[in-house]
Amino acid sequence: DPRLKIFALNSNKKLAEKIADAVGVELGKSSVNQFSDGEIQINIEESIRGDHVYLIQSTSYPVNDNLMELLIMIDALKRASAKTINVVMPYYGYARQDRKARSREPITAKLVANMLTAAGANRVLTLDLHAVQIQGFFDIPVDHLMAAPLLADYFITNGYVGDDTVVVSPDHGGVTRARKLAEFLKAPIAIIDKRRPKANVAEVMNIIGNVEGKKCILIDDMIDTAGTITLAAQALKDAGATEVVACCTHPVLSGPAFDRLENSPLEKVIVTDSIYLPDENRIDKIEEVSVGELIGDAIKRIHENKPVSPLFEKKN
Amino acid sequence: DPRLKIFALNSNKKLAEKIADAVGVELGKSSVNQFSDGEIQINIEESIRGDHVYLIQSTSYPVNDNLMELLIMIDALKRASAKTINVVMPYYGYARQDRKARSREPITAKLVANMLTAAGANRVLTLDLHAVQIQGFFDIPVDHLMAAPLLADYFITNGYVGDDTVVVSPDHGGVTRARKLAEFLKAPIAIIDKRRPKANVAEVMNIIGNVEGKKCILIDDMIDTAGTITLAAQALKDAGATEVVACCTHPVLSGPAFDRLENSPLEKVIVTDSIYLPDENRIDKIEEVSVGELIGDAIKRIHENKPVSPLFEKKN
Ligand SMILES: Nc1ncnc2c1ncn2[C@@H]1O[C@H](COP(=O)(O)O)[C@@H](O)[C@H]1O
Ligand SMILES: Nc1ncnc2c1ncn2[C@@H]1O[C@H](COP(=O)(O)O)[C@@H](O)[C@H]1O
Repeated sequence: DPRLKIFALNSNKKLAEKIADAVGVELGKSSVNQFSDGEIQINIEESIRGDHVYLIQSTSYPVNDNLMELLIMIDALKRASAKTINVVMPYYGYARQDRKARSREPITAKLVANMLTAAGANRVLTLDLHAVQIQGFFDIPVDHLMAAPLLADYFITNGYVGDDTVVVSPDHGGVTRARKLAEFLKAPIAIIDKRRPKANVAEVMNIIGNVEGKKCILIDDMIDTAGTITLAAQALKDAGATEVVACCTHPVLSGPAFDRLENSPLEKVIVTDSIYLPDENRIDKIEEVSVGELIGDAIKRIHENKPVSPLFEKKN
Repeated sequence: DPRLKIFALNSNKKLAEKIADAVGVELGKSSVNQFSDGEIQINIEESIRGDHVYLIQSTSYPVNDNLMELLIMIDALKRASAKTINVVMPYYGYARQDRKARSREPITAKLVANMLTAAGANRVLTLDLHAVQIQGFFDIPVDHLMAAPLLADYFITNGYVGDDTVVVSPDHGGVTRARKLAEFLKAPIAIIDKRRPKANVAEVMNIIGNVEGKKCILIDDMIDTAGTITLAAQALKDAGATEVVACCTHPVLSGPAFDRLENSPLEKVIVTDSIYLPDENRIDKIEEVSVGELIGDAIKRIHENKPVSPLFEKKN
């Protein structure tokens, strides 16, 4: 009977441990190092012949190194006769480059899809893709999970429910995501409608919906430089919100992100562990909920040929 | 009539300028930057619709960044309707991972070939591959140049010719390469035959051929940590060589390389500019010969549908 094996690469070993725990297996023995010149050296230290292998890697910073680790490991697993190679990417790097917004732009999210397939991936499991259309960039099965139920758990536990709370999308693109969270919280939604009255004039943040006297939850798929989310938080405060918190699935947190969050009116920022946050990089405002069990349960269901719903409910 | 355009990525702009000069065109306008989170952003700033594009990139250190730049640029060129995309890789990174030397190893050199093709490359032009078999990893045309004639020019100009000179291969794998250079110099060859008498005993460097009282030229395709070449130089000195110099096509030069070269009996190290050497990294012993004209001439011949021989002779 083909065994289920889980291997972790370097981007997020801590999450990989949690996933393996949830599945009830040990992480497979392997090591990923660099040769003296920076080329990646991979060592798979146990037989995986005929096994179903789940390979955990977020293609977060440093994205090119993490992506190459993943591709080289897929190549090694394929040549070592894995029965299936199931790529688990809690965070899918380059997802924002998903269309030609201007002439002569690459579509790197599609390039990544082609590379994973060319390397030998048989299936992809991922979480809150920047655009759900990226599933269609693949001709292999893609299972897509959502962190919304986990974020909702957090907010329900902490008393953010009902009409006192408003879930706010920081832009038009995120309304579906806000609606989903609002359903769990039985709360209304609002939308920040950014407009530039004329060229070279600062953007105006117009709020659609009622936030006065309410607790506001901003939600986005990722927080990168934190520009959008912190400006939105200020606009909500200015419009009379009593409290503003933010949440996202993917804490990319690059460049000025930590300073901006620290200096913003945001009281809390709830993120998942889809991307590893080193302790020295954290600030008190940031709270983490783990997607380890969510992903672990999905892996078990895939292995047992059961359906995996994007809004996968916990069994307890 | 489709135009010939040359674009340079970030690994070796100086060589790309020389290649463009040799071809007689300006480098195409493009820029490669990083977003705040380290993802690569590419801008092609002129139309290339219907053009034959030659894209110069050595996948040297940092190899994963340089490789991803190359793949993303190929994707962008393909979507911008280039007629053909001709990848010029003076140095082919990951070439040493060209076989499964041990169980469960990847064959990353083949993965790189598949990725280049999947991204949209139509042709590859490269220089002194670590193993010529890598040409067979591709199902698109691969033209393979050799730096030997250029290195020979240098040595002939500097009086290393005839029976006073011996060309030495530092291992069995490099004998063909040594023979080629020796032909140009009308000089004999010698081979260093490393043997470990028993396990856990230091290797013995046995020299096959006569080097006593001779000027020795060690030749390899690349010098990485410089361990092999500096030990070989010492062995040649110990065997009575009057002078030892080394040459290679690809100056990878990682880790202890500079210290080892500096402290070795090597009087000179002749390298090409296939890999960019920043000035602050150079030592006096290192002399550079340029492959700019060699590659430029090959590009012109490809564009004119003329044959490109590996040992491409200069026209003057
Ligand atoms: N890593 C990145 N960081 C910042 N912006 C990016 C990044 N990747 C792509 N983009 C830009 O973000 C745009 C897509 O973002 P969005 O409109 O939120 O889907 C693209 O048109 C890109 O120009
Ligand atoms: N970047 C690298 N640095 C050092 N050794 C490498 C590197 N890539 C591959 N290798 C090893 O070098 C061996 C091939 O070298 P060679 O025998 O000279 O062809 C492979 O079996 C690898 O284990």
